[in-house]
Amino acid sequence: MTELVRDVNEDELLRRIFPLLPVGGSTQVGPGDDAAIVAASDGRFLVSADVLVQDRHFRMDWSTGADVGHRAAAQNFADIAAMGGRPTALVVSLVLPGETPVDWVEDLARGLGEACKPVRAGVVGGDLASGEEIAVSVTVHGTLDWREPVLRSGARPGDVVAYAGVSGWSAAGLALLESGLVRPAGNHPLVRAYLRPDPPLEAGRRAARAGATAMLDVSDGLLRDAERIAVASGVRIDFDPGAFAGERRVLSDAALVVAQAALRAGGAEELVGDLGQAEAANRLMSQWIWSGGEDHGLLAAFPGDATLPEGWTVIGRVLKPGQASPKVMIGGRRPAISSGWDHFQR
Amino acid sequence: MTELVRDVNEDELLRRIFPLLPVGGSTQVGPGDDAAIVAASDGRFLVSADVLVQDRHFRMDWSTGADVGHRAAAQNFADIAAMGGRPTALVVSLVLPGETPVDWVEDLARGLGEACKPVRAGVVGGDLASGEEIAVSVTVHGTLDWREPVLRSGARPGDVVAYAGVSGWSAAGLALLESGLVRPAGNHPLVRAYLRPDPPLEAGRRAARAGATAMLDVSDGLLRDAERIAVASGVRIDFDPGAFAGERRVLSDAALVVAQAALRAGGAEELVGDLGQAEAANRLMSQWIWSGGEDHGLLAAFPGDATLPEGWTVIGRVLKPGQASPKVMIGGRRPAISSGWDHFQR
Repeated sequence: MTELVRDVNEDELLRRIFPLLPVGGSTQVGPGDDAAIVAASDGRFLVSADVLVQDRHFRMDWSTGADVGHRAAAQNFADIAAMGGRPTALVVSLVLPGETPVDWVEDLARGLGEACKPVRAGVVGGDLASGEEIAVSVTVHGTLDWREPVLRSGARPGDVVAYAGVSGWSAAGLALLESGLVRPAGNHPLVRAYLRPDPPLEAGRRAARAGATAMLDVSDGLLRDAERIAVASGVRIDFDPGAFAGERRVLSDAALVVAQAALRAGGAEELVGDLGQAEAANRLMSQWIWSGGEDHGLLAAFPGDATLPEGWTVIGRVLKPGQASPKVMIGGRRPAISSGWDHFQR
Repeated sequence: MTELVRDVNEDELLRRIFPLLPVGGSTQVGPGDDAAIVAASDGRFLVSADVLVQDRHFRMDWSTGADVGHRAAAQNFADIAAMGGRPTALVVSLVLPGETPVDWVEDLARGLGEACKPVRAGVVGGDLASGEEIAVSVTVHGTLDWREPVLRSGARPGDVVAYAGVSGWSAAGLALLESGLVRPAGNHPLVRAYLRPDPPLEAGRRAARAGATAMLDVSDGLLRDAERIAVASGVRIDFDPGAFAGERRVLSDAALVVAQAALRAGGAEELVGDLGQAEAANRLMSQWIWSGGEDHGLLAAFPGDATLPEGWTVIGRVLKPGQASPKVMIGGRRPAISSGWDHFQR
């Protein structure tokens, strides 16, 4: 019989989880007291938070507990990397329905632990509460190691815009799962990118060392997040229409099968109109790459004469602020793509 | 017409909340970037987390948004105080159903802000997500200001046990609300203690300076939390049966009316048996004081010869570990009171 959260008391559940969580290289006092103590050698710390809610951010029939744990950690780490920092510690609050299997919670802890290991971050505390649906609330901490942070507000006209990580993979993986064409448990790289994003954490620190003027984690879609840099920096961003040629090669098969399935199901008029299948696939790819959120790649601006570090590709440039023109363009024109994700609008 | 969360987009909701949140004295980079930056001058920081879930930790018809915000902040601050620290920054993640009034969320932000002001803590970041029920997940940060932390594990035989803050007030306030005898919006001090706990934050720092050997925030009930100190320190704790005489005077009227109401409703057999009303009220008070959680008072051990700082009252002593005897006693005997709150058991 599956053991459920309601069958064990809170202390017992904590006893089961704690051994699965890494201590971390910066932890001075770990879980078990009123508060944990984490080192902040340079006299300040980075902090950010993300919450994942069942049936909004993950589906129990697609994601294992370990997938959710990995994803919660990884997307938080991306926020630290986007400042030029290095993750040190997580705090995790879980809201769990009584009918959640204890196995699932242990699996979540394992997923958090696996994601933490490469960066030597620890899980130093948290809270447990019961509720109607699972919510995984993670607060991440990081260190700048005495360097200056890379904010969103430093991009200057003349800078190049560059990207690190994958783009469109997560949205493509989600589309494959939604279409029923690929099963979550397989090892399809796009589905895996959706279930377990792998942000380019080291690229963030390399960008900071190379003099990046602005940087952010792309979680809501490239166009939408680029606009955040443009607004914060008081500039415009113009993307190269030929950017992401490599991503298009990776995504093309998935786009074709998803477009075929959509056309077969007769539900793709708004996407395709009277276009053919190839053009439908092309539009799908553009949508995934430019508006698909949750790849957690990094978008940054570098001085025009900077040597880009490993993992970074130029995809556009920073322009002076315009008058009426859009803040973010592709090839000098307003993108014909909806801009991205809003949690309360869809 | 009431404006609802689903009527505004995420950016707009953030624009409404941000001006209501205090910046804080330790904030170097506030909300709006991928991560915030908080000062940690002594090279480390305290961190703890608590989550409040609708209908588990608060009821929408009893608590205003400001009550919930105040409580979320206050109980987190208590965890920092219990280490001997001073709160510096909060991170707040909100899960909100689409039908939550925007007013309620603004009110929550105001409550957080009011609680932050006296300690000069800032709200430096967070996340928003939609869900089926409201969950307010707060991570609190604090500084030790170069002092050593007061852990749970330092109590030694011969120490005195002391308490700062109120005890039983929150449980009494909840009982008054549940019995329908008092309305939440009034200014009844016990109801207010339940809706807006006011932990003795300064007493925590004074205890640290006075040499407290162990300390914790009493959130799950005095007996249960005392056992945590006993286990962590490898000692026993014996409370004075005459402790909290002052609290009994404050609580006696409330205990009488709640006992009367319970006896009238005929649902108090398990509590009262064939005892009279006065004895029923007496038992109720003991239950509230020794097992009622959420007052967020501080329980600490001090060396036997220490001069107790302002706000602290001796309520017991630390004994050597026993063999089969209970870890926590009242007057040398196993308490005839159930020990406290478990989130997954009730």
